[in-house]
Order: sequence, then structure tokens, then C-alpha cells
Amino acid sequence: MRQSQLFTKTRREDPKDETAKNAKLLIRAGFIHKELAGVYSLLPLGLLALEKLKTIIRAEMNAVGGTEVALSALQNQDSWQKSGRWSDEVLDVWFKTELQGGGQVGLAPTHEEAMTALMKDHLGSYKDLPIYVYQFQTKFRNELRAKSGLLRGREFIMKDLYSFSDSEAALDDFYDRMKGAYERIYERVGLGELTYITFADGGSFSKYSHEYQTLSEAGEDTIFVSRDRHLAVNKEVLTEETLSELGLRRDELEERRAIEVGNIFKLGTKFSEALGLYFTDQNGQKQPAIMGSYGLGLGRLLATIVEVMSDDRGLVWPRSVAPFPLHLVWVPGQGEAAAEAADRFYEELLAAGREALYDDRPLQAGEKFADSDLLGLPYRVVVSDKTLAAGKWELKNRATGEITMVNQAELINLCFGG
Amino acid sequence: MRQSQLFTKTRREDPKDETAKNAKLLIRAGFIHKELAGVYSLLPLGLLALEKLKTIIRAEMNAVGGTEVALSALQNQDSWQKSGRWSDEVLDVWFKTELQGGGQVGLAPTHEEAMTALMKDHLGSYKDLPIYVYQFQTKFRNELRAKSGLLRGREFIMKDLYSFSDSEAALDDFYDRMKGAYERIYERVGLGELTYITFADGGSFSKYSHEYQTLSEAGEDTIFVSRDRHLAVNKEVLTEETLSELGLRRDELEERRAIEVGNIFKLGTKFSEALGLYFTDQNGQKQPAIMGSYGLGLGRLLATIVEVMSDDRGLVWPRSVAPFPLHLVWVPGQGEAAAEAADRFYEELLAAGREALYDDRPLQAGEKFADSDLLGLPYRVVVSDKTLAAGKWELKNRATGEITMVNQAELINLCFGG
Repeated sequence: MRQSQLFTKTRREDPKDETAKNAKLLIRAGFIHKELAGVYSLLPLGLLALEKLKTIIRAEMNAVGGTEVALSALQNQDSWQKSGRWSDEVLDVWFKTELQGGGQVGLAPTHEEAMTALMKDHLGSYKDLPIYVYQFQTKFRNELRAKSGLLRGREFIMKDLYSFSDSEAALDDFYDRMKGAYERIYERVGLGELTYITFADGGSFSKYSHEYQTLSEAGEDTIFVSRDRHLAVNKEVLTEETLSELGLRRDELEERRAIEVGNIFKLGTKFSEALGLYFTDQNGQKQPAIMGSYGLGLGRLLATIVEVMSDDRGLVWPRSVAPFPLHLVWVPGQGEAAAEAADRFYEELLAAGREALYDDRPLQAGEKFADSDLLGLPYRVVVSDKTLAAGKWELKNRATGEITMVNQAELINLCFGG
Repeated sequence: MRQSQLFTKTRREDPKDETAKNAKLLIRAGFIHKELAGVYSLLPLGLLALEKLKTIIRAEMNAVGGTEVALSALQNQDSWQKSGRWSDEVLDVWFKTELQGGGQVGLAPTHEEAMTALMKDHLGSYKDLPIYVYQFQTKFRNELRAKSGLLRGREFIMKDLYSFSDSEAALDDFYDRMKGAYERIYERVGLGELTYITFADGGSFSKYSHEYQTLSEAGEDTIFVSRDRHLAVNKEVLTEETLSELGLRRDELEERRAIEVGNIFKLGTKFSEALGLYFTDQNGQKQPAIMGSYGLGLGRLLATIVEVMSDDRGLVWPRSVAPFPLHLVWVPGQGEAAAEAADRFYEELLAAGREALYDDRPLQAGEKFADSDLLGLPYRVVVSDKTLAAGKWELKNRATGEITMVNQAELINLCFGG
């Protein structure tokens, strides 16, 4: 993409109405726009980064057998009355609104009810099971405080998968496969090391649920980390019983702030019984489907990457999530040589299906380099009279600052290679 | 996709609470699920068809220079107060809801206000123009009656593009290019012949806006069609003046029912002046940006395809929109030969990156064929003891019923070729 075609502008100053680092930087770099507290629009570079996350997560959900759907935001209150979660006292983040013809509808804060209800039209016998369905869908949560940028939104895109199984053993088996999928996702977006599977309260059906928590001072949660075992325990289940079950000693745990970047939960038959989702088992008996739910907020994941990877010059994207792997920066010089070389380079990349961000704007080098650092693409190459004379490209790694002199083939391999 | 992995079930009977053909068929075929009147969830096959539409529309929007973004559904009322459209008397389809901390927000029924407001952070001088931004985003409209299935939703995905230009001439030029893009979209989804550019009221800025209307008895609109000129006039502007300007005679126009499948509109400076979106022109003077808006509802387009193409056996998809181009139907026979041949065929397709729907379910031929007709994929090939003995594949065209005997290379060319 030519930067002259990108309508977004960068800013040198932090927006005054934001306190969270992720919001400040993403707004300054033109990735997002604030509509109101906790509600952000995605501008071109922000949307590209989000789509990269989606592609990674979709691949992992498909790999465990998930099928993609897209449920509505507006919710029929019937299903929520049945589950007991329609009341604002039970679920305190509802946005509700009125139909013109009369009757109240809600904006989905989550989709267990809707997914269970629709499955009643499709589930008949044990032969239909297991079913794994997921979506990337907007959730609405009426948060009283929304000061953390994309970490806690009133409107945000979540990947949520729901599993329907015919036995607890089948649920347990799938649940373990989802742990693997979640680990691969955090690994692929560069958060593997910092992200800990964290034991949390399991509700009525099972003893524990699991959160994925990324260490960060920006986090709202406190967890107790065992670095050796690469796991953690949530405050609410930090009891002698838990420690003994997990084989942990209190004094080997480190208290840390962390961001919850995902959670997986065995629901059991809570929703299937409440909403009447039954199947006929091998003996002809009706049984409630045994469910699990597996959430992952995309905006929060993006914000977490910003919180833990960015530096004082701006954003720093891992290659897997960056809107583009390469920032091709033309610096105006004497005559047309550099401009022509930069154009040719960009067109060659495009022709080979390799998308870079190409700064073709007639601005001073200093302003361009500051912008480049702020946008944070993984690699930067400068095309100027000076670099042309050098005969090799100077490739700068945004995260490490390291500069490598490479020829074009090496550059392409580093930026676009496997 | 193996049909045994598809959780959705088909139904032989129409749902009792639907009167629209598109809703009846899409529900029976398991493409959508009704959450409440005018609100539908997309099941796997419905989502795949919608994604095909998105791909076509995105390509055409990118071709005219559009940049993709994703704006929020929750709307800050400030911008709407400024444009004068916050009041329910002015805009009668608002869904509004309350923030917990106090204050009302709306659910976007359209995005002119939000798009104009965010552009204030990015538009400085005439050098930044033109800007063309689009999105695929959910709109919410509190329709009193919502009985037309996906034709009139309370929640639906729309492609909306907004153009910002520095002169009326530049707007006019882009507007004409968008006409071309819209025509190509209807052509590509198989509605070119039936879809008429239709002159409609232009509001305060220009004399006419344009709708794209597809002839169908299911339509809510009445238009007056000139078949020779392949254009139409909307009821509200059918005056002597309009006829004379367009060089049409009243008696050559045919009164027809039609579905509005798109509309494009020159907004002028209505929103830029109301919200204060100015740029500095070449003379250093502040000027309001000159805007246009270009809408296209994806669910409605999908429903229109269903209304005009389906037959009494079910859905009929054009290849460009079908979830899969080919339905590979295994019919159980004596021994394992047919099953093995069908499996091998499917695996070969997959290995070559060719996605088909593979009916691998151990059901009777009659049930499978009825399902196949109901799902409406463009081509069907049956793998049975009989077809194996024939040595060639029997390829059935769903739309025409035509059967062709082909070898595997010919089949692949017909179904997956350019």
C-alpha cells in the first residue's frame, strides 16, 4: 500500500483523553479512532492487523474441527430468561433496547444462550456429536469504567467457540485439544513466553476453568506464577487445596499483574438443560448435550501485544500480526534516481504478491523515520541516494534496532520468507 | 467440506413463522437461523455465501481506490445531534440504549456521521483528497415490520463507502466510476439483466440519486422500467420534468415490483458542514469536503438472489456466490467401491485446493438428491456403483437440469475453471 493513499495521519502528541498506553499509541499511529470511551473504530492499518489475528485464530480453530458461523448481536430475551441471565442483577453488563412494536431485546454480551438455542434445530442423535462451532463476532458489554483502551471495550470482537459433546470424556478430550490450540495462538503472535495458563474457578460443573494470562503491568488481574512449571493460579482459587492438587508450594509463586487474553470453560449441561438441548444416546435415551465455551478477545489480544512489545518510539509488531512485514521508505534526494528505484522496488514486490507499506510521500527523512518507528512494522528499508550508492539495502529490524546490509533476494527472504 | 461434519440439518417443511420465500428456503436449507423477526444468524453455508459476496464487492471497491475500515456500532450522539438526525422523529429506526455511567448511545443505522467525524482527525489540505473509505459493517434499524426475511432486517451487514472530494467535478467523476463498480457487482452475482439503475430523489444537493433495483414480485418498491434503455424511474420522481430530462415517454415505461439492492447518493456538504469537516484548498481557503455515500446490503443481495433464482426444489446459486461450486454425492451401493472412489475424488480435489461439498453420509439416494436440490450448489456429481460402471461422470447443472457426461478433467474445468 502506498502511504500517499493511506488517509490516516500520525500524531506526535498523546490524545488527552486516554490513559492506557495501547490506546495512546494506536491512536497516534492512526490504527484506531475513538468513538466513545471503550468504543473504537478500526482504521486501515488497525483492520489489517486484526485480520492477521483472525487468520491465525481461524486456522487453529479449523485445525481442531471448528466450523465458522456468525450469530446476531440482537438477542431474543426468551433464551436468556431460560438460562436465568436476562436480569441486570445476574449479568450487570447488559445493553438493552426496545423494539418499535414492543418488547425488549438485548445486545449479546456473549453467545452461549443463542448458540444453544439454535443448536436445538440441528441436534438429534449422538451421531450428530461432537459439534464445534465458532465465530468472530462483536460483543457488547456495558462496562461502568472503560479506561483501558482496547483492553476493556464496551464493544469488541471476540472469537468464541462452543463445543457440544455426548460425554464428559469427549468434552475433556476436546478441552485438552483447545489448550493446545490456545498455546499455539499465543506462540504465533509472539506472546508464548509471557502467557501463562492460569487455574481459575470452574463454576458448578468442574473444579477449574482456565484463563490465559499475559504478564503486564497494564493488566487488571493478579496471578500467582510458577515460572518453572509455566503455569499460574488465579487469586480466587489460591487455596491450600489448589496448591496441593497442582503440586505447588506457596513460596515458589510470584505475584504478578497480568492481562487475561483468553479463557476456556467446561459448561457441562448448564445451558443445554436450561434451554432443552437434548440428544438421543445409543440406548435411545434423551441426554443433555455437554458443553464447553472458549473465548478470546481480538482487540484485547492486539492491545496486549502493544502493551508488552512497544517502546518509547512507538509500536513494535511481530511479523505474524503486522499490517505489512516491510516498510519501504523513499527519501527524496538529488534528481529522480531514488524515487525511481523505490517505485521499481515496490512494483516488483507487488507483482510477486508481496504487500509492503511504501512511504512514497515527499517529506523529510526525519519525519519519515519517526513515522516508521511509530507504525512499528517489523522491517524498514530506506531507498535514498546514499543507500543506492552503497549497492546493498540497509534493512533495519524495528524490535532490535539491528541493521543488516542485504541484497534484494536476502531482503525478500527475511521479510516475506517462511 | 464433508457433509457429515456439517452440523446443520435440512427441513422438508417451511418454517411456520416465515412468509418470505428467501427466509423459508434459507432456513430449510440450513443457511440461516432466525433469532427474532428481522434478525438472523448465519450458519456455515450462509456465511460462506456471504463471504463470496464480500470478496466480489471488496474487489470492486478496491478497484475504484477504496480503503477498508471497520467502524463501531455504538454511536456517540454528539455527531448525530450536529447533523440533526439524533431525534426519533427525524430518523424513525433508531435503536438507542443507556450507558451505565449515564448518557444515551445509539446503534448505527448508517455511518455518515461517524465517518465524517473521524475524518476530521485526518483531513488537512486538498492534497489529502480524494479519500474513499468503505466497510462491511452491521447496521441496526428498528423496523416496525420485518416480515421479508433477509430483504428487510433489523440487523444486517452493509457495504457502505463514503467519498470525500475537493470539488463537485471530482465527486461527479467518482460517482460515475461507482456506477460502473455497482454494475459489475450485479453482473458478477448473476443479477445484471434484472437489475436497473433507477432515478430517485436526490435530496437538497443534487437532483437525482440512484438506486439499483432488481425486478422481483417480492420487492417492496414500484419502479417504471425502460427495457430498451435498461434504466428505470422511481415513483417519487416520475414527473413530466424527469421524463423530459431523461428523454423518456410515459407509455414506454413498464410498472414493475422491484427490490432495492443498492443506492448511491451525492451528499454534497450536508454532513461536512454540519460536523465541521473542512480542508484547506490551493488558495489557502477553508472548504467543506464534498461527500458521496454508496450503500449495498449484503443480506438483501443474498435474499434477492434467492427470490429470483430459486425454484420449487430449492435454492439455485450462481457459481460466484455458491458456498461451493460442486456437490459431490456418494450413493451407497454394493461393497466399498463407490465409497472409496468418492473419498479418493474428494481428497484429490482438496489436495488441488478445490473445495467441494462432499455428501459422505450413509443415507438413501432419494434423500440425498432432495437435499442436493435444496442446497442448490451449481453442479452435482453422483458417485455410485452405476456411475462407476459408466466410466464417465454424470454432471448435473442445478439451474438448467442439464446433464453432461464428462471425464474428471472436464468436470474440474466446468466446476472450478476460469
